[in-house]
Amino acid sequence: MSKEITSRASDYSQWYNDLVIKGELADHSAVRGCMVIKPYGFALWENMRDALDKMFKDTGHVNAYFPLFIPKSFLSKEAAHVEGFAKECAVVTHYRLKNDPNGGGVIVDPEAKLEEELIIRPTSETIIWNTYKDWVQSYRDLPLLINQWANVVRWEMRTRLFLRTAEFLWQEGHTAHATKEEAVEETEKMLGVYATFVEEFMALPVIKGVKTASERFAGAEDTYCIEALMQDGKALQAGTSHFLGQNFAKAFDVKFSNKENQLEYVWATSWGVSTRLVGALVMAHSDDQGLILPPKIAPFQVVIVPIYKGDEQKSMIDGKVKEIMSELKAMGIRVKYDDNDNARPGWKFAEYEMKGVPVRLAIGARDLEKNVVEVARRDTKEKRVIPLEGITGYVESLLVEIQTAMFDKAKLYQQEHITPADTWEEFEKLLDEKGGFISAHWDGTMETEEMIKEKTKATIRCIPLENKQETGQCIYSGKASKERVLFARAY
Amino acid sequence: MSKEITSRASDYSQWYNDLVIKGELADHSAVRGCMVIKPYGFALWENMRDALDKMFKDTGHVNAYFPLFIPKSFLSKEAAHVEGFAKECAVVTHYRLKNDPNGGGVIVDPEAKLEEELIIRPTSETIIWNTYKDWVQSYRDLPLLINQWANVVRWEMRTRLFLRTAEFLWQEGHTAHATKEEAVEETEKMLGVYATFVEEFMALPVIKGVKTASERFAGAEDTYCIEALMQDGKALQAGTSHFLGQNFAKAFDVKFSNKENQLEYVWATSWGVSTRLVGALVMAHSDDQGLILPPKIAPFQVVIVPIYKGDEQKSMIDGKVKEIMSELKAMGIRVKYDDNDNARPGWKFAEYEMKGVPVRLAIGARDLEKNVVEVARRDTKEKRVIPLEGITGYVESLLVEIQTAMFDKAKLYQQEHITPADTWEEFEKLLDEKGGFISAHWDGTMETEEMIKEKTKATIRCIPLENKQETGQCIYSGKASKERVLFARAY
Repeated sequence: MSKEITSRASDYSQWYNDLVIKGELADHSAVRGCMVIKPYGFALWENMRDALDKMFKDTGHVNAYFPLFIPKSFLSKEAAHVEGFAKECAVVTHYRLKNDPNGGGVIVDPEAKLEEELIIRPTSETIIWNTYKDWVQSYRDLPLLINQWANVVRWEMRTRLFLRTAEFLWQEGHTAHATKEEAVEETEKMLGVYATFVEEFMALPVIKGVKTASERFAGAEDTYCIEALMQDGKALQAGTSHFLGQNFAKAFDVKFSNKENQLEYVWATSWGVSTRLVGALVMAHSDDQGLILPPKIAPFQVVIVPIYKGDEQKSMIDGKVKEIMSELKAMGIRVKYDDNDNARPGWKFAEYEMKGVPVRLAIGARDLEKNVVEVARRDTKEKRVIPLEGITGYVESLLVEIQTAMFDKAKLYQQEHITPADTWEEFEKLLDEKGGFISAHWDGTMETEEMIKEKTKATIRCIPLENKQETGQCIYSGKASKERVLFARAY
Repeated sequence: MSKEITSRASDYSQWYNDLVIKGELADHSAVRGCMVIKPYGFALWENMRDALDKMFKDTGHVNAYFPLFIPKSFLSKEAAHVEGFAKECAVVTHYRLKNDPNGGGVIVDPEAKLEEELIIRPTSETIIWNTYKDWVQSYRDLPLLINQWANVVRWEMRTRLFLRTAEFLWQEGHTAHATKEEAVEETEKMLGVYATFVEEFMALPVIKGVKTASERFAGAEDTYCIEALMQDGKALQAGTSHFLGQNFAKAFDVKFSNKENQLEYVWATSWGVSTRLVGALVMAHSDDQGLILPPKIAPFQVVIVPIYKGDEQKSMIDGKVKEIMSELKAMGIRVKYDDNDNARPGWKFAEYEMKGVPVRLAIGARDLEKNVVEVARRDTKEKRVIPLEGITGYVESLLVEIQTAMFDKAKLYQQEHITPADTWEEFEKLLDEKGGFISAHWDGTMETEEMIKEKTKATIRCIPLENKQETGQCIYSGKASKERVLFARAY
């Protein structure tokens, strides 16, 4: 198998695909737009999922599971929602196949047509709020703080592994509250959880902000988001948290009696992140040799490769490695010993570079004599010879150092790629030549936003939270503006 | 909310539904045959899933994720498989909705018809073996030991919460091997993992066996199963492990070059358990007051209820409970303090009996003075007053004791309900009056098996592993038989 990777400079998009496929994260499947998440990619996703799940539970949320199917009529109940999702959904119309009487294999049984078509969930607000109707009567039943880990389907025409697939895995939180204030607080709290997760676990700095009306979730009153920057200067929306107002409560008639015994509509939020984050992770950190994974979520944090000739050397090395492994494991470090004798050390080195394992230890017979080991870190490719004594403590600190270094590097890149623009020429030039976020004045109208998008493919990624208020003139229309917003081309 | 439960004696089936719904494990949904798994039920499933997942990983398996959709033509590739699954599947025929030009809301866009229909996976052998084709070239690529946690859909006509739903959650292991021996060994190993899990975590004894040809998985050469017994004397298949021979490798042309560089078809297994296990758990252990959950998987193992008048008593109790809680948590025990002042202690007692929490501690002001606490165990409903000193150690042992006692009770029931029958009259009488497994001779033909099923609704649950060989006469046909098999009516 050829493990050569297209360089970022020659074709960024192909580089990304090479990494995902040759790094064994995912593969295309026989079903258009659907991917297979391979064991290595899934182990990465599991680590991300488990960390997030713990954060959700620590903030008082519980998991539940709602149906895959949504009756077609449910989608229509919230006007904006159906506009946003009806165009790209998988529709189940029949519930049986039968043998073709003409011998053509199996065919859809025309007699097994559903009375009402079922949509594969593109998101679950409608089926969940239809359920909440039965769960909420009194203020005592509130809040509901429920999350679901699930697969969803959006029939995208142009797909890319992890970044945009017809089926993807995600979590969707759906909460119900007695007051607007509490729902807004929840929306912001979960945005904070996402930002913390992406920054601390994925080593990826984000900007927290609010979407403009035209970029809002279909059915939301406000969409909060975290925006990350990829190495090609394009932005990527890494998570969203929506304040849904009473829209879904009204659509599904979900009321509660308050402390004064009066009926009120319930307030809602929803928030989600998906396997798209894996794509962001790959794009943000990796290099032309392969993946670079942050230690906190890497499937293996350390790989140990023996270098030996003959059984005697091998068994001496094995003995030492066994000690190191058991110490590392006791520290909670995920370590793999690759003593597969079908492959040479050099091949293995390249393989684990490709796979982004943060730390590699290579131990040879001569190293053992000298009581040392070669330690290579993936992010900087620096190699050092380190005494075997205290090696596990060294590795433990090194993993922390790598995690920090990866974040710092990405943070520096982000900071260097938030550029103010004050004229349209400057704006266009920055987009084409530098990329990243461009901080510019905007007149606040959808028309201008749309025109800018049409002319440059740049969208308003967000209005940063706690944005500085500053009068100015819209970059495009010249009309008055009260603050800068962040534009970028985006995935 | 009325929390009254139908008794087992008056209506076993309604009792089960009451437990699931009033115990807040699951609910019906707006989609026919699909359930909502409520937070309490999902927490139980998570504990089961996590324990199983760990056992899979400890036996060398890794997780991955394959598409929800299966192209219709894939189902036809394995002849027996399509017969078994085509009859009950959800079929996606379109990928878009549009606004009805006549104003009737959204309708399926007839222009968005798929060229080939997609089936929602009822099980994933076909899509997975189509993928394995690309992953396997040489013996060095084998074995593949892959598991997937997923939702699947089988369009059942008669559904029951957890036991039989159109959509359910499960895991499906799909392994690929170089030799038949290795595949058979894997099939048996995973059956063992299931039996260990169900017995040790769910406190539910099972019988390990092999299915007859007519009860085999569609596409398998051999289906191994574990069979459990419910309190109404009906059996429930709790898990299956299939030796698939080379059937799917042949259907999808998956070959590998062996050490002699010759091409051979790959050998396969698949194995699965589902949310059906939650139904088995409920039916096997619970009583007329509610659920009885085994400590190892109960969402809460201990609940603490304060009994007090006024803030002063409350704050004294709070202080003591805080100590106990932190000790229990440090021991890894899942504990909940219910100091909600909207409900009285008596209501809470009934509520946690309903929910099957294994141990309840009730602490009143007078108890505090005497340095004691009332400990109630859910399984036997025994109450004891225990000194506060050493209470956490007491609770820890009590949880172990309950787990064992629940298993022993179920084991005794199982042993008392395996009854030999030597005449047809005896067989019918046992089925109607006693239930359970009936150990009887069978002539080995499908015809007899079918006739017995037609006349009595009893099926052959399994031919137990390491079954005693014993000549006799078939209970129905009188023909010669070489061993007894286990019959039962089943869920």
